[in-house]
Amino acid sequence: MVGGSRAVERCDALKRPPYSEAADMLFRPYLSAAHDATIAQLTAWMAEAGMAVRLDPAGNVVGRYESFIPPQLAGEGDRARMASGVVGADSCVSPPSGFAGVPPVNWGDMKSLIIASHIDSVRDGGAYDGPLGVMLGIEVVAALNAHNIRLPFAIEIYAFGDEEGSRFPASMLCSRAVCGQIDYSALDVADRDGVTLAAALESFGLNRETLLTARRDSSELIGYLEAHIEQGPVLEAEGLALGVVTSIACQKRFEVTVTGVAGHAGTNSMALRKDALTAGAEMVLGIEAVAQAGPEDLVATVGRMTVGPNAPNVVPGEVVFTIDVRAGTEAPRDQAADAILQQIQQIAAKRGTPASTRLIHDLPAAPCDKSMMEKLSRAVADVTGQAARPIVSGAGHDAMAFAGITPTAMLFIRCKDGISHNPLEAVDPADVDLAFRAMLAFVQDLGTTDE
Amino acid sequence: MVGGSRAVERCDALKRPPYSEAADMLFRPYLSAAHDATIAQLTAWMAEAGMAVRLDPAGNVVGRYESFIPPQLAGEGDRARMASGVVGADSCVSPPSGFAGVPPVNWGDMKSLIIASHIDSVRDGGAYDGPLGVMLGIEVVAALNAHNIRLPFAIEIYAFGDEEGSRFPASMLCSRAVCGQIDYSALDVADRDGVTLAAALESFGLNRETLLTARRDSSELIGYLEAHIEQGPVLEAEGLALGVVTSIACQKRFEVTVTGVAGHAGTNSMALRKDALTAGAEMVLGIEAVAQAGPEDLVATVGRMTVGPNAPNVVPGEVVFTIDVRAGTEAPRDQAADAILQQIQQIAAKRGTPASTRLIHDLPAAPCDKSMMEKLSRAVADVTGQAARPIVSGAGHDAMAFAGITPTAMLFIRCKDGISHNPLEAVDPADVDLAFRAMLAFVQDLGTTDE
Repeated sequence: MVGGSRAVERCDALKRPPYSEAADMLFRPYLSAAHDATIAQLTAWMAEAGMAVRLDPAGNVVGRYESFIPPQLAGEGDRARMASGVVGADSCVSPPSGFAGVPPVNWGDMKSLIIASHIDSVRDGGAYDGPLGVMLGIEVVAALNAHNIRLPFAIEIYAFGDEEGSRFPASMLCSRAVCGQIDYSALDVADRDGVTLAAALESFGLNRETLLTARRDSSELIGYLEAHIEQGPVLEAEGLALGVVTSIACQKRFEVTVTGVAGHAGTNSMALRKDALTAGAEMVLGIEAVAQAGPEDLVATVGRMTVGPNAPNVVPGEVVFTIDVRAGTEAPRDQAADAILQQIQQIAAKRGTPASTRLIHDLPAAPCDKSMMEKLSRAVADVTGQAARPIVSGAGHDAMAFAGITPTAMLFIRCKDGISHNPLEAVDPADVDLAFRAMLAFVQDLGTTDE
Repeated sequence: MVGGSRAVERCDALKRPPYSEAADMLFRPYLSAAHDATIAQLTAWMAEAGMAVRLDPAGNVVGRYESFIPPQLAGEGDRARMASGVVGADSCVSPPSGFAGVPPVNWGDMKSLIIASHIDSVRDGGAYDGPLGVMLGIEVVAALNAHNIRLPFAIEIYAFGDEEGSRFPASMLCSRAVCGQIDYSALDVADRDGVTLAAALESFGLNRETLLTARRDSSELIGYLEAHIEQGPVLEAEGLALGVVTSIACQKRFEVTVTGVAGHAGTNSMALRKDALTAGAEMVLGIEAVAQAGPEDLVATVGRMTVGPNAPNVVPGEVVFTIDVRAGTEAPRDQAADAILQQIQQIAAKRGTPASTRLIHDLPAAPCDKSMMEKLSRAVADVTGQAARPIVSGAGHDAMAFAGITPTAMLFIRCKDGISHNPLEAVDPADVDLAFRAMLAFVQDLGTTDE
């Protein structure tokens, strides 16, 4: 068994101890014993697939599958094979004779394509959010290796130790370390028990001094590819197995505090109330209406709301809620955010319930690389027989960090009911196999057209 | 100093230890040390006002001011005085000569007017919600006694130990005991520390076996009068010191659970969401609209709402909220409740977010007695020079229990900003003095017109 089915089975195999911190659910935080056990298993799978494996200074497992011999060192037979075109998983060409006998060169100096995702999980999370992208990368390398196919670039599979913020109140610590987007202040973040990242790294056998040396220079890379479950319902709704991400959405997040006057639910006549919750409810509907009126990739969510004093017989005196606004590009997001904030103030004024708003996050969009997207779309279309569905990723991914340093592509895989961060998370192995084939076609296309 | 000002001062004097369980706020739960200290102080004040004082089996302080000598035992002078008409606080008639020399009779057999309220408080409560009605009762008796005025009925001042549910998860335990509206199962309710009412009564020196003997028979009573702060903004908004309660509102309370589908706030497009909070928000506005379209005394409140999973980046999957609907009479309340429930189901169906609703409480209205209301309104008009404002009490009061056994009247006193259950609770002593005068006029009117 290889390809998509094995990728799914391997994710399933990591759902429980020793790969989870909890016996009855999946919870794999960064730098935990479960993380350590997962690193050991991945190291074995990557080695078996033909990779040289190391643990980098941020606790990422990195498997490297070397490129073919540099052209200036290769013989005629090698050059002929290099030009032989795309090789599918079912019909890999045989290795050229003599390939194994070429003298070793400094493979480490060759540029790499990174195929990556994360292996941490939220508490009571699903098996595929993260690990599936790593397993697919391993399958791609295993298929190339099984047929002795080398490409004009190395492939490095990264299994990032943190993307979810699974242990510390900071997310994407590992991909940001690799992309040079954190500094030593990150070492001071502490988990719920007060253990800092610095202390956790050292307990894990890593060195606080060398965390930032996990950084890769953009000159070493030709690009970045990440496969991930969609975590949304769009592909399923449209009957599609795969989608090609055009951009990771930009995001603004606000906190809104609405101040009314708390009072007895029986004695305050409707006309004299200053009810913070009815005001908040009108704002929630206004936010929804703004997002519904915008483009498809615009979303706005009130995910958290707390009511004070929150007693059945008291008119609410305070409501605090968050607004999360995302879109593929900044302009529609900012236009929506402005309209929402304006509407909130109008409602607050009309109802005599003042509202204060505070910007909490402002994350720029991370557009995918046009040329990489085109190649990935072509591969998806070839494999599925349908035009590739361009899709904005509303969720953040490790690809966001890489978009700043190298051309990036992301492949989305349909998931059941759009569910993630939940044990009900599910994928169809047939979809994952299509993803595997598309990725294999993509990396070989990248190899030939870059020649 | 007597009358309204003293009533206010006495409430203020009970705000802190030993009359409160907390040093920095007022908290006087039933059967606490603070309750015990308050009983001692009230006993002294009632005795000073001319009453015989006892602690009843439910822990209520009861001061009894006897009626005049029964007509068949009275002399001519007494009968003349009985017919002398209403006596104001400023112009009480002198006692008839020889009044004190009449031989003792069985005063306890005479019928009583109960003037009452409660002396427990919520945690961090205000000084007047409850105690003010007790102090006003004492002032009325003190004024009658100071001028040796006896009425053709006894006056009993009850200071109920529990109305707020201040210690046990049950409210109005004391007035319900007096009105015969609880049974021995009430003894099993337990406070936060697991102490049952039975155990608390015994720690207080009372007997679990005799709790129900606190009951008074309706044949012993001529009526019930309670003065209370309005706990709402209506009187203040209309520039009135006093209002006459027409009815204590009936109440229905529901719990609603809206079930959506939790999902990632970035990846779930607006069109495909089943957002439990936007559905809940639409329901909240629908509830408000139904109540606003109804009569003045109809109120509907969503006081408690909890959102799940309540994270900024997750589309809410569940919202649970309460609805509290009240009106002066059942018909408009039930009509509103039906309209609200129907609207909730329409919104749930439209949005694909099922809603289940559950009736939690159904309390009937407690109408005040027409004749008592008319007398109280006349007294209020005489004292204030303004027509008495009829008002529905949206809040529950001890008067609810008594409405079942004897003619009941309630007087509302304007409070600042409608605030109660809060240390900011405030009254104007001038308003309280008007209440005192109106109550004094009322009881004397009751004495003369009943003759």
